[in-house]
Amino acid sequence: MAGSGHWVAVDWGTSNLRAWQIDGDGAIEASLSSPHGMGKLTPAEFPAVLTELLAPVPGDRLDVLICGMAGARQGWKEAPYLDAPADLSRLADGAVVPHMPEGRIVPRILPGVCVRTPGAEDVMRGEETQLLGLAALAPGFEGLVVMPGTHSKWALLDGHVLREFSSAMTGEIFEVLKTHSVLRHSLQGELSGADRDAGFEAGLELGLDKPERLTATLFKVRAGSLLNGRSAPYSAGFLSGLLIGAEIGGQRDWISSAEIPLIGSPALCTLYLTAFRKAGARARVVDATDATLAGLKAART
Amino acid sequence: MAGSGHWVAVDWGTSNLRAWQIDGDGAIEASLSSPHGMGKLTPAEFPAVLTELLAPVPGDRLDVLICGMAGARQGWKEAPYLDAPADLSRLADGAVVPHMPEGRIVPRILPGVCVRTPGAEDVMRGEETQLLGLAALAPGFEGLVVMPGTHSKWALLDGHVLREFSSAMTGEIFEVLKTHSVLRHSLQGELSGADRDAGFEAGLELGLDKPERLTATLFKVRAGSLLNGRSAPYSAGFLSGLLIGAEIGGQRDWISSAEIPLIGSPALCTLYLTAFRKAGARARVVDATDATLAGLKAART
Repeated sequence: MAGSGHWVAVDWGTSNLRAWQIDGDGAIEASLSSPHGMGKLTPAEFPAVLTELLAPVPGDRLDVLICGMAGARQGWKEAPYLDAPADLSRLADGAVVPHMPEGRIVPRILPGVCVRTPGAEDVMRGEETQLLGLAALAPGFEGLVVMPGTHSKWALLDGHVLREFSSAMTGEIFEVLKTHSVLRHSLQGELSGADRDAGFEAGLELGLDKPERLTATLFKVRAGSLLNGRSAPYSAGFLSGLLIGAEIGGQRDWISSAEIPLIGSPALCTLYLTAFRKAGARARVVDATDATLAGLKAART
Repeated sequence: MAGSGHWVAVDWGTSNLRAWQIDGDGAIEASLSSPHGMGKLTPAEFPAVLTELLAPVPGDRLDVLICGMAGARQGWKEAPYLDAPADLSRLADGAVVPHMPEGRIVPRILPGVCVRTPGAEDVMRGEETQLLGLAALAPGFEGLVVMPGTHSKWALLDGHVLREFSSAMTGEIFEVLKTHSVLRHSLQGELSGADRDAGFEAGLELGLDKPERLTATLFKVRAGSLLNGRSAPYSAGFLSGLLIGAEIGGQRDWISSAEIPLIGSPALCTLYLTAFRKAGARARVVDATDATLAGLKAART
């Protein structure tokens, strides 16, 4: 039978939807993607989007395992959070089965993980699958994993047990300040010029050194450009360095001498590599798609 | 001659314009205001706005002393910053005279003050006049003055000498996160309910205790409402407390045992009073308009 033995791994995030047809041995047979992220869909629209995306995948019955924001309350069907500490190897036990009007596609959505302790509340959805993937890619790994992004995740992993984690709004704070605050006046035009690295270095140093001063040091972006004629690329680099530096500088007690795997976009991971090095820590980049795929495979077994 | 001996004190901020007709003894004879803040005007529009506002004030020649954002680069005419440390009693020496098409009104705009030291760059415009006013209202005062606002100012004053100062973007960070970030989902609807105080207390405690964790603790606003059903007023109070707590907790080395004058809006000063008390410091509220008027009077003599 055509396509027998294969299944479909899906990463359904807020902005994008990606799927991989995977054979019985775990090899990728096809990659598919769509711009229909969870953020743009109502619950009723998910089945048609998935049906259309998977039309090229042969088979009478498709086992589809989904991670990410499709399982959020505002997504397709809520997959209730597991509580940390969580054994990620049992992620699929918490999966929910959303309704599909036709029977060929049989989807399951993996849960996220949360911390309910008052004052330490936190949530993740999608990253838990990447962490399970990391545990599969680096068997026996124990220590801190950092996942740079809109909401960076710091996770303490022990094999496939997620002990605890914390999110930092670093990426989103950068975006809202750049777009909506008085700092925008210092960040007009092209932001990727040659000065950006110098600005990043200066901001990083200040952020690492004085993370507790962030509400005050952020204003230096504006004052520096008003008084000392800092360019827009310099200011953008400074803002980025300041926030990443404050994120890392304020959480040094999570850092040990072990090498820190970084999972995220290549551009962002490069900045965090520099930042962790400056903080005296060792880090290495793990490909985010590799981690997601390894996690979906591990969750399915 | 009608109106002889009087002059006009003007506070021309970004959002509002206020003016007071003051007699030769310093008493207020009339108060005027207009919504034509500097932020809504092109340079060419300032003279007509001032002429219209001062139409009811009698006199052939009106001496008008202006403080605030009218002297910014984007304002009426730039009044270059004085450098801190700055002797505020000589503020008027740095005033600029903008062009008026008719001769009855003779305006002068007071300068702001800046810090040019790289890494500590800062600017103020308007607050320096309030600080001069405080020096006049509390002769001999020496110590920290805090001016809560969109960009809170922490200033070290020694008589009428402004030794140094630092701005914190606390108020603006609150606004942009509330309006534009993922936290907005936890801040929908009425925000002034009964839970707000409890949220403020909890956020304040966390902010004061861990100012260096701000990029991470901000996410608790969202996670707390997702997981523990925190109300919108609670979340708004928590966000406000967290930011004010981080502002104060990160700058404890500026705080001495002396009582801290707070100059700002009454609502905001009440929050900062609570916050400084919780941080173990003493503070008192000084009326912002009193400080502005005392400063303009002192600058003129």
